[in-house]
Amino acid sequence: MPITLYELAGADPDLRFSPYCWRARLALAHKGLAVEGVPWHFTEKEKIAFSGQGRVPVIVDGAKVVADSWAIADYLEEAYADRPSLFGGPAGRAHARFINAWADTIVQPGTGRLVVRDILDVVCPEDQHYFRHSREQAYGMPLEDVVAGREERVEAWRSALAPVRTVLRHQDWLGGEAPDYADYILLGSLQWPRCVSRFVLLEADDPVADWRQRGLELFDGLLAKAKTV
Amino acid sequence: MPITLYELAGADPDLRFSPYCWRARLALAHKGLAVEGVPWHFTEKEKIAFSGQGRVPVIVDGAKVVADSWAIADYLEEAYADRPSLFGGPAGRAHARFINAWADTIVQPGTGRLVVRDILDVVCPEDQHYFRHSREQAYGMPLEDVVAGREERVEAWRSALAPVRTVLRHQDWLGGEAPDYADYILLGSLQWPRCVSRFVLLEADDPVADWRQRGLELFDGLLAKAKTV
Repeated sequence: MPITLYELAGADPDLRFSPYCWRARLALAHKGLAVEGVPWHFTEKEKIAFSGQGRVPVIVDGAKVVADSWAIADYLEEAYADRPSLFGGPAGRAHARFINAWADTIVQPGTGRLVVRDILDVVCPEDQHYFRHSREQAYGMPLEDVVAGREERVEAWRSALAPVRTVLRHQDWLGGEAPDYADYILLGSLQWPRCVSRFVLLEADDPVADWRQRGLELFDGLLAKAKTV
Repeated sequence: MPITLYELAGADPDLRFSPYCWRARLALAHKGLAVEGVPWHFTEKEKIAFSGQGRVPVIVDGAKVVADSWAIADYLEEAYADRPSLFGGPAGRAHARFINAWADTIVQPGTGRLVVRDILDVVCPEDQHYFRHSREQAYGMPLEDVVAGREERVEAWRSALAPVRTVLRHQDWLGGEAPDYADYILLGSLQWPRCVSRFVLLEADDPVADWRQRGLELFDGLLAKAKTV
Protein backbone atom coordinates (compact mmCIF):
# COMPACT_ATOMS: atom_id res chain seq x y z
CA MET A 1 0.00 0.00 0.00
CA PRO A 2 1.48 3.36 -0.97
CA ILE A 3 2.16 5.98 1.66
CA THR A 4 -0.35 8.81 1.51
CA LEU A 5 1.11 12.32 1.41
CA TYR A 6 -1.11 15.32 1.99
CA GLU A 7 0.40 18.12 -0.08
CA LEU A 8 -0.34 21.80 -0.40
CA ALA A 9 -1.98 22.43 -3.78
CA GLY A 10 -3.17 25.40 -5.78
CA ALA A 11 -6.46 25.95 -7.56
CA ASP A 12 -4.96 23.58 -10.09
CA PRO A 13 -4.72 20.41 -7.98
CA ASP A 14 -1.59 19.38 -9.87
CA LEU A 15 0.25 22.51 -8.75
CA ARG A 16 2.01 21.39 -5.55
CA PHE A 17 4.20 24.08 -4.16
CA SER A 18 5.05 23.66 -0.47
CA PRO A 19 8.82 23.48 0.17
CA TYR A 20 8.16 21.18 3.11
CA CYS A 21 5.98 18.84 1.07
CA TRP A 22 8.69 18.65 -1.59
CA ARG A 23 11.21 17.70 1.08
CA ALA A 24 8.89 14.88 2.13
CA ARG A 25 8.37 13.80 -1.51
CA LEU A 26 12.11 13.67 -2.07
CA ALA A 27 12.70 11.76 1.17
CA LEU A 28 10.06 9.21 0.13
CA ALA A 29 11.66 8.89 -3.31
CA HIS A 30 15.11 8.45 -1.75
CA LYS A 31 13.73 5.55 0.26
CA GLY A 32 12.15 4.14 -2.89
CA LEU A 33 8.69 4.19 -1.37
CA ALA A 34 5.47 4.38 -3.37
CA VAL A 35 3.46 7.47 -2.58
CA GLU A 36 -0.02 8.73 -3.30
CA GLY A 37 -0.25 12.50 -3.11
CA VAL A 38 -3.49 14.08 -1.89
CA PRO A 39 -3.98 17.74 -2.77
CA TRP A 40 -4.77 19.96 0.21
CA HIS A 41 -5.68 23.62 0.52
CA PHE A 42 -4.73 26.02 3.32
CA THR A 43 -8.32 26.23 4.53
CA GLU A 44 -9.00 22.49 4.60
CA LYS A 45 -8.06 22.13 8.26
CA GLU A 46 -10.64 19.42 8.89
CA LYS A 47 -9.15 17.24 6.15
CA ILE A 48 -5.95 16.75 8.19
CA ALA A 49 -7.46 17.13 11.66
CA PHE A 50 -6.74 13.41 12.21
CA SER A 51 -3.05 14.38 12.40
CA GLY A 52 -3.67 16.51 15.48
CA GLN A 53 -2.43 19.70 13.83
CA GLY A 54 -3.18 21.91 10.85
CA ARG A 55 -0.25 21.91 8.44
CA VAL A 56 1.14 19.78 5.66
CA PRO A 57 3.05 17.65 4.89
CA VAL A 58 1.24 14.83 6.65
CA ILE A 59 1.94 11.23 5.76
CA VAL A 60 -0.14 8.18 6.51
CA ASP A 61 1.78 4.93 6.42
CA GLY A 62 -0.59 2.15 7.40
CA ALA A 63 -1.60 2.99 10.97
CA LYS A 64 1.15 5.59 11.38
CA VAL A 65 0.47 9.32 10.93
CA VAL A 66 3.37 11.78 10.86
CA ALA A 67 3.26 15.55 10.31
CA ASP A 68 6.17 17.98 9.69
CA SER A 69 8.86 17.45 7.08
CA TRP A 70 11.70 16.86 9.54
CA ALA A 71 9.63 14.42 11.59
CA ILE A 72 8.71 12.61 8.38
CA ALA A 73 12.37 12.27 7.39
CA ASP A 74 13.13 10.99 10.89
CA TYR A 75 10.29 8.50 10.71
CA LEU A 76 11.27 7.20 7.28
CA GLU A 77 14.90 6.88 8.32
CA GLU A 78 13.96 4.71 11.28
CA ALA A 79 11.04 2.77 9.81
CA TYR A 80 12.93 2.02 6.58
CA ALA A 81 16.43 1.72 8.01
CA ASP A 82 17.30 -1.03 5.50
CA ARG A 83 16.83 1.40 2.58
CA PRO A 84 19.28 4.15 1.50
CA SER A 85 19.99 6.45 4.42
CA LEU A 86 18.72 10.03 4.37
CA PHE A 87 21.15 11.31 6.99
CA GLY A 88 24.11 8.92 7.01
CA GLY A 89 24.10 8.44 10.78
CA PRO A 90 23.62 10.53 13.93
CA ALA A 91 26.24 13.18 13.10
CA GLY A 92 24.93 13.47 9.56
CA ARG A 93 21.47 14.01 11.00
CA ALA A 94 22.68 16.52 13.60
CA HIS A 95 24.53 18.55 10.96
CA ALA A 96 21.62 18.32 8.51
CA ARG A 97 19.51 19.92 11.21
CA PHE A 98 21.66 23.03 10.79
CA ILE A 99 21.13 23.04 7.02
CA ASN A 100 17.40 22.63 7.63
CA ALA A 101 17.41 25.53 10.08
CA TRP A 102 19.43 27.69 7.68
CA ALA A 103 17.00 27.01 4.84
CA ASP A 104 14.02 27.77 7.09
CA THR A 105 15.36 30.92 8.76
CA ILE A 106 17.40 32.47 5.94
CA VAL A 107 16.52 31.11 2.50
CA GLN A 108 12.76 30.79 2.85
CA PRO A 109 11.99 34.13 4.52
CA GLY A 110 14.13 35.76 1.81
CA THR A 111 12.30 33.85 -0.90
CA GLY A 112 8.94 34.82 0.54
CA ARG A 113 9.81 38.49 0.29
CA LEU A 114 10.43 37.98 -3.43
CA VAL A 115 7.52 35.77 -4.52
CA VAL A 116 4.78 35.78 -1.88
CA ARG A 117 2.47 37.93 -4.01
CA ASP A 118 2.66 35.40 -6.83
CA ILE A 119 1.24 32.70 -4.57
CA LEU A 120 -2.01 34.61 -4.32
CA ASP A 121 -2.56 34.01 -8.04
CA VAL A 122 -2.27 30.23 -7.77
CA VAL A 123 -4.22 29.33 -4.62
CA CYS A 124 -7.83 28.21 -4.85
CA PRO A 125 -10.60 30.81 -4.35
CA GLU A 126 -11.32 29.55 -0.83
CA ASP A 127 -7.68 30.10 0.16
CA GLN A 128 -7.24 33.56 -1.29
CA HIS A 129 -8.67 35.57 1.58
CA TYR A 130 -6.96 33.38 4.18
CA PHE A 131 -3.62 33.60 2.46
CA ARG A 132 -3.63 37.36 1.94
CA HIS A 133 -4.93 38.09 5.42
CA SER A 134 -2.59 35.77 7.34
CA ARG A 135 0.50 36.75 5.35
CA GLU A 136 -0.22 40.49 5.43
CA GLN A 137 -0.66 40.25 9.19
CA ALA A 138 2.71 38.51 9.46
CA TYR A 139 4.52 40.95 7.16
CA GLY A 140 2.66 43.99 8.46
CA MET A 141 2.02 45.27 4.94
CA PRO A 142 0.18 44.47 1.69
CA LEU A 143 1.71 41.59 -0.28
CA GLU A 144 2.27 43.96 -3.20
CA ASP A 145 4.51 46.07 -0.96
CA VAL A 146 6.37 43.02 0.35
CA VAL A 147 7.61 42.07 -3.12
CA ALA A 148 8.20 45.65 -4.34
CA GLY A 149 11.72 46.20 -5.65
CA ARG A 150 12.45 42.51 -5.93
CA GLU A 151 14.53 42.99 -9.09
CA GLU A 152 17.07 44.86 -6.98
CA ARG A 153 16.70 42.80 -3.81
CA VAL A 154 17.21 39.42 -5.45
CA GLU A 155 20.96 40.09 -5.42
CA ALA A 156 21.02 39.89 -1.60
CA TRP A 157 19.04 36.65 -1.78
CA ARG A 158 21.67 35.22 -4.13
CA SER A 159 24.46 36.35 -1.79
CA ALA A 160 22.90 34.39 1.06
CA LEU A 161 23.56 31.20 -0.93
CA ALA A 162 27.32 31.78 -0.70
CA PRO A 163 27.89 28.78 1.59
CA VAL A 164 26.31 26.47 -0.99
CA ARG A 165 28.66 27.76 -3.70
CA THR A 166 31.63 27.15 -1.42
CA VAL A 167 30.51 23.59 -0.69
CA LEU A 168 29.98 22.86 -4.39
CA ARG A 169 33.60 23.72 -5.10
CA HIS A 170 34.53 20.65 -3.05
CA GLN A 171 31.74 18.13 -3.57
CA ASP A 172 28.92 17.46 -6.04
CA TRP A 173 26.12 17.42 -3.49
CA LEU A 174 25.47 18.82 -0.04
CA GLY A 175 25.38 15.14 0.96
CA GLY A 176 28.87 14.59 -0.49
CA GLU A 177 29.32 12.24 -3.44
CA ALA A 178 25.59 11.55 -3.69
CA PRO A 179 22.47 13.51 -2.75
CA ASP A 180 20.90 13.01 0.66
CA TYR A 181 18.41 14.84 2.86
CA ALA A 182 20.68 17.90 3.06
CA ASP A 183 20.13 18.35 -0.68
CA TYR A 184 16.40 17.67 -0.44
CA ILE A 185 16.04 20.44 2.14
CA LEU A 186 17.32 23.12 -0.21
CA LEU A 187 15.84 21.54 -3.35
CA GLY A 188 12.47 21.70 -1.58
CA SER A 189 13.04 25.33 -0.65
CA LEU A 190 13.83 26.19 -4.28
CA GLN A 191 11.00 24.13 -5.76
CA TRP A 192 8.53 26.39 -3.98
CA PRO A 193 9.34 29.60 -5.96
CA ARG A 194 9.94 27.51 -9.07
CA CYS A 195 6.35 26.25 -8.95
CA VAL A 196 4.52 29.47 -8.05
CA SER A 197 6.45 32.22 -9.82
CA ARG A 198 8.20 33.07 -13.06
CA PHE A 199 10.50 35.47 -11.26
CA VAL A 200 14.07 34.34 -11.90
CA LEU A 201 15.92 33.64 -8.66
CA LEU A 202 19.00 31.75 -9.81
CA GLU A 203 21.18 33.08 -12.60
CA ALA A 204 22.08 30.55 -15.28
CA ASP A 205 25.82 30.68 -14.59
CA ASP A 206 25.41 30.21 -10.82
CA PRO A 207 26.92 26.91 -9.60
CA VAL A 208 23.81 26.61 -7.44
CA ALA A 209 21.74 26.56 -10.64
CA ASP A 210 23.85 23.68 -11.96
CA TRP A 211 23.36 21.76 -8.72
CA ARG A 212 19.64 22.52 -8.81
CA GLN A 213 19.40 21.28 -12.39
CA ARG A 214 20.97 17.99 -11.32
CA GLY A 215 18.51 17.90 -8.45
CA LEU A 216 15.56 18.47 -10.77
CA GLU A 217 16.53 15.33 -12.67
CA LEU A 218 16.73 13.03 -9.64
CA PHE A 219 14.20 10.21 -9.31
CA ASP A 220 13.24 10.24 -12.95
CA GLY A 221 12.76 14.00 -12.98
CA LEU A 222 10.45 14.20 -9.97
CA LEU A 223 11.04 17.94 -9.51
CA ALA A 224 11.55 18.72 -13.21
CA LYS A 225 8.21 17.21 -14.18
CA ALA A 226 6.29 19.04 -11.50
CA LYS A 227 3.59 21.44 -12.62
CA THR A 228 4.68 25.09 -12.52
CA VAL A 229 2.97 28.37 -13.41
CA MET B 1 56.16 13.77 20.42
CA PRO B 2 53.50 16.47 20.47
CA ILE B 3 52.07 17.83 17.25
CA THR B 4 53.39 21.30 16.45
CA LEU B 5 50.75 23.91 15.63
CA TYR B 6 51.76 27.22 14.12
CA GLU B 7 49.24 29.75 15.40
CA LEU B 8 48.59 33.39 14.63
CA ALA B 9 49.70 35.49 17.61
CA GLY B 10 49.64 39.11 18.62
CA ALA B 11 52.42 41.31 20.00
CA ASP B 12 51.71 39.35 23.17
CA PRO B 13 52.76 35.86 22.06
CA ASP B 14 50.11 34.35 24.34
CA LEU B 15 47.34 36.13 22.48
CA ARG B 16 46.28 33.60 19.82
CA PHE B 17 43.33 34.82 17.84
CA SER B 18 42.89 33.12 14.48
CA PRO B 19 39.49 31.40 14.12
CA TYR B 20 41.08 28.76 11.91
CA CYS B 21 43.85 28.04 14.40
CA TRP B 22 41.25 27.65 17.15
CA ARG B 23 39.38 25.14 14.99
CA ALA B 24 42.63 23.18 14.66
CA ARG B 25 43.29 23.44 18.43
CA LEU B 26 39.83 22.12 19.19
CA ALA B 27 40.15 19.30 16.65
CA LEU B 28 43.47 18.27 18.23
CA ALA B 29 41.90 18.38 21.70
CA HIS B 30 38.92 16.32 20.52
CA LYS B 31 41.36 13.65 19.34
CA GLY B 32 43.18 13.87 22.66
CA LEU B 33 46.48 14.73 21.00
CA ALA B 34 49.29 16.63 22.68
CA VAL B 35 50.09 19.88 20.95
CA GLU B 36 52.83 22.45 21.09
CA GLY B 37 51.72 25.84 19.84
CA VAL B 38 54.22 28.05 18.07
CA PRO B 39 53.30 31.74 17.85
CA TRP B 40 53.40 33.16 14.34
CA HIS B 41 52.95 36.66 12.96
CA PHE B 42 51.36 37.66 9.66
CA THR B 43 54.68 38.82 8.24
CA GLU B 44 56.66 35.70 9.19
CA LYS B 45 56.11 34.03 5.85
CA GLU B 46 59.55 32.38 5.85
CA LYS B 47 58.79 30.67 9.17
CA ILE B 48 56.09 28.50 7.53
CA ALA B 49 57.57 28.41 4.02
CA PHE B 50 58.24 24.69 4.56
CA SER B 51 54.48 24.17 4.31
CA GLY B 52 54.46 25.41 0.72
CA GLN B 53 52.06 28.27 1.48
CA GLY B 54 51.82 31.34 3.68
CA ARG B 55 48.95 30.95 6.14
CA VAL B 56 48.28 29.35 9.48
CA PRO B 57 47.22 26.98 10.92
CA VAL B 58 50.00 24.64 9.91
CA ILE B 59 50.61 21.42 11.83
CA VAL B 60 53.69 19.25 11.85
CA ASP B 61 53.06 15.68 12.96
CA GLY B 62 56.34 13.81 12.66
CA ALA B 63 57.16 13.90 8.95
CA LYS B 64 53.69 15.11 7.99
CA VAL B 65 52.94 18.80 7.33
CA VAL B 66 49.35 19.97 6.85
CA ALA B 67 48.06 23.51 6.32
CA ASP B 68 44.45 24.79 6.39
CA SER B 69 41.99 24.08 9.20
CA TRP B 70 39.69 21.85 7.14
CA ALA B 71 42.61 19.84 5.75
CA ILE B 72 43.96 19.47 9.30
CA ALA B 73 40.61 18.13 10.53
CA ASP B 74 40.55 15.73 7.58
CA TYR B 75 44.09 14.59 8.30
CA LEU B 76 43.45 14.04 11.99
CA GLU B 77 40.24 12.15 11.28
CA GLU B 78 42.07 9.73 9.01
CA ALA B 79 45.41 9.47 10.82
CA TYR B 80 43.74 9.02 14.22
CA ALA B 81 40.67 7.08 13.13
CA ASP B 82 40.72 5.04 16.34
CA ARG B 83 40.11 8.19 18.44
CA PRO B 84 36.78 10.05 18.83
CA SER B 85 35.45 11.03 15.42
CA LEU B 86 35.34 14.69 14.40
CA PHE B 87 32.75 14.22 11.65
CA GLY B 88 30.86 11.02 12.47
CA GLY B 89 31.24 9.54 8.99
CA PRO B 90 31.11 10.68 5.36
CA ALA B 91 27.67 12.34 5.55
CA GLY B 92 28.59 14.07 8.80
CA ARG B 93 31.70 15.38 7.07
CA ALA B 94 29.81 16.46 3.94
CA HIS B 95 27.20 18.33 6.00
CA ALA B 96 29.87 19.86 8.26
CA ARG B 97 31.40 21.29 5.09
CA PHE B 98 28.25 23.39 4.75
CA ILE B 99 28.53 24.65 8.33
CA ASN B 100 32.19 25.47 7.66
CA ALA B 101 31.27 27.35 4.50
CA TRP B 102 28.48 29.21 6.29
CA ALA B 103 30.84 30.28 9.07
CA ASP B 104 33.45 31.40 6.54
CA THR B 105 31.17 33.25 4.14
CA ILE B 106 28.56 34.69 6.50
CA VAL B 107 29.68 34.76 10.15
CA GLN B 108 33.32 35.73 9.69
CA PRO B 109 32.93 38.51 7.12
CA GLY B 110 30.20 39.94 9.36
CA THR B 111 32.44 39.68 12.41
CA GLY B 112 35.30 41.34 10.58
CA ARG B 113 33.16 44.37 9.82
CA LEU B 114 32.56 44.74 13.57
CA VAL B 115 36.00 44.13 15.08
CA VAL B 116 38.69 44.39 12.40
CA ARG B 117 39.97 47.72 13.70
CA ASP B 118 40.54 46.19 17.14
CA ILE B 119 42.95 43.67 15.66
CA LEU B 120 45.32 46.46 14.70
CA ASP B 121 45.84 47.18 18.40
CA VAL B 122 46.95 43.64 19.22
CA VAL B 123 49.25 42.66 16.35
CA CYS B 124 53.01 43.04 16.69
CA PRO B 125 54.67 46.21 15.34
CA GLU B 126 56.00 44.35 12.27
CA ASP B 127 52.45 43.24 11.38
CA GLN B 128 50.72 46.58 11.81
CA HIS B 129 51.50 48.08 8.43
CA TYR B 130 50.85 44.78 6.65
CA PHE B 131 47.55 44.26 8.41
CA ARG B 132 46.19 47.74 7.85
CA HIS B 133 47.33 47.89 4.24
CA SER B 134 46.08 44.44 3.19
CA ARG B 135 42.74 44.76 4.97
CA GLU B 136 42.07 48.31 3.80
CA GLN B 137 42.78 47.21 0.26
CA ALA B 138 40.27 44.37 0.66
CA TYR B 139 37.57 46.53 2.27
CA GLY B 140 38.29 49.55 0.06
CA MET B 141 38.23 51.92 3.05
CA PRO B 142 40.06 52.77 6.29
CA LEU B 143 39.56 50.20 9.06
CA GLU B 144 38.02 52.91 11.22
CA ASP B 145 35.30 53.37 8.60
CA VAL B 146 34.74 49.61 8.30
CA VAL B 147 33.73 49.31 11.96
CA ALA B 148 31.82 52.60 12.16
CA GLY B 149 28.27 52.19 13.43
CA ARG B 150 28.90 48.73 14.79
CA GLU B 151 26.63 49.29 17.78
CA GLU B 152 23.71 49.43 15.36
CA ARG B 153 24.97 46.85 12.89
CA VAL B 154 25.61 44.12 15.44
CA GLU B 155 21.88 43.36 15.42
CA ALA B 156 22.11 42.10 11.83
CA TRP B 157 25.11 39.98 12.81
CA ARG B 158 23.03 38.41 15.58
CA SER B 159 20.17 37.75 13.17
CA ALA B 160 22.49 35.79 10.92
CA LEU B 161 22.91 33.26 13.76
CA ALA B 162 19.21 32.37 13.58
CA PRO B 163 19.87 28.84 12.27
CA VAL B 164 22.04 28.10 15.30
CA ARG B 165 19.25 29.14 17.64
CA THR B 166 16.81 26.89 15.82
CA VAL B 167 19.18 23.92 16.05
CA LEU B 168 19.75 24.50 19.77
CA ARG B 169 16.02 24.15 20.40
CA HIS B 170 16.38 20.52 19.37
CA GLN B 171 19.87 19.43 20.41
CA ASP B 172 22.60 20.54 22.82
CA TRP B 173 25.36 20.79 20.23
CA LEU B 174 25.64 21.31 16.50
CA GLY B 175 27.10 17.80 16.58
CA GLY B 176 23.97 16.46 18.31
CA GLU B 177 24.25 15.03 21.81
CA ALA B 178 27.95 15.85 22.05
CA PRO B 179 30.20 18.44 20.42
CA ASP B 180 32.02 17.61 17.23
CA TYR B 181 33.81 19.50 14.48
CA ALA B 182 30.60 21.36 13.55
CA ASP B 183 30.75 23.00 16.97
CA TYR B 184 34.47 23.67 16.73
CA ILE B 185 33.96 25.54 13.47
CA LEU B 186 31.67 28.12 15.04
CA LEU B 187 33.44 28.15 18.41
CA GLY B 188 36.61 29.01 16.49
CA SER B 189 34.84 31.77 14.61
CA LEU B 190 33.60 33.26 17.88
CA GLN B 191 36.89 32.87 19.73
CA TRP B 192 38.47 35.27 17.26
CA PRO B 193 36.47 38.39 18.29
CA ARG B 194 36.48 37.19 21.89
CA CYS B 195 40.28 37.33 21.92
CA VAL B 196 40.87 40.59 20.07
CA SER B 197 37.98 42.83 21.10
CA ARG B 198 35.88 43.88 24.06
CA PHE B 199 32.97 44.67 21.77
CA VAL B 200 30.00 42.56 22.90
CA LEU B 201 28.72 40.37 20.08
CA LEU B 202 26.46 37.89 21.88
CA GLU B 203 23.80 39.08 24.29
CA ALA B 204 23.72 37.25 27.62
CA ASP B 205 20.22 35.81 27.11
CA ASP B 206 20.99 34.49 23.62
CA PRO B 207 20.85 30.67 23.45
CA VAL B 208 23.97 30.92 21.31
CA ALA B 209 25.74 32.52 24.28
CA ASP B 210 24.73 29.57 26.45
CA TRP B 211 26.07 27.12 23.87
CA ARG B 212 29.27 29.17 23.54
CA GLN B 213 29.72 29.17 27.31
CA ARG B 214 29.51 25.37 27.31
CA GLY B 215 31.99 25.38 24.45
CA LEU B 216 34.40 27.58 26.36
CA GLU B 217 34.53 24.99 29.09
CA LEU B 218 35.33 22.02 26.85
CA PHE B 219 38.71 20.33 27.21
CA ASP B 220 39.41 21.72 30.64
CA GLY B 221 38.50 25.26 29.59
CA LEU B 222 40.74 25.41 26.52
CA LEU B 223 38.87 28.39 25.06
CA ALA B 224 37.92 29.95 28.41
CA LYS B 225 41.52 30.09 29.59
CA ALA B 226 42.81 31.66 26.40
CA LYS B 227 44.38 35.07 26.67
CA THR B 228 42.08 37.90 25.58
CA VAL B 229 42.44 41.66 25.42
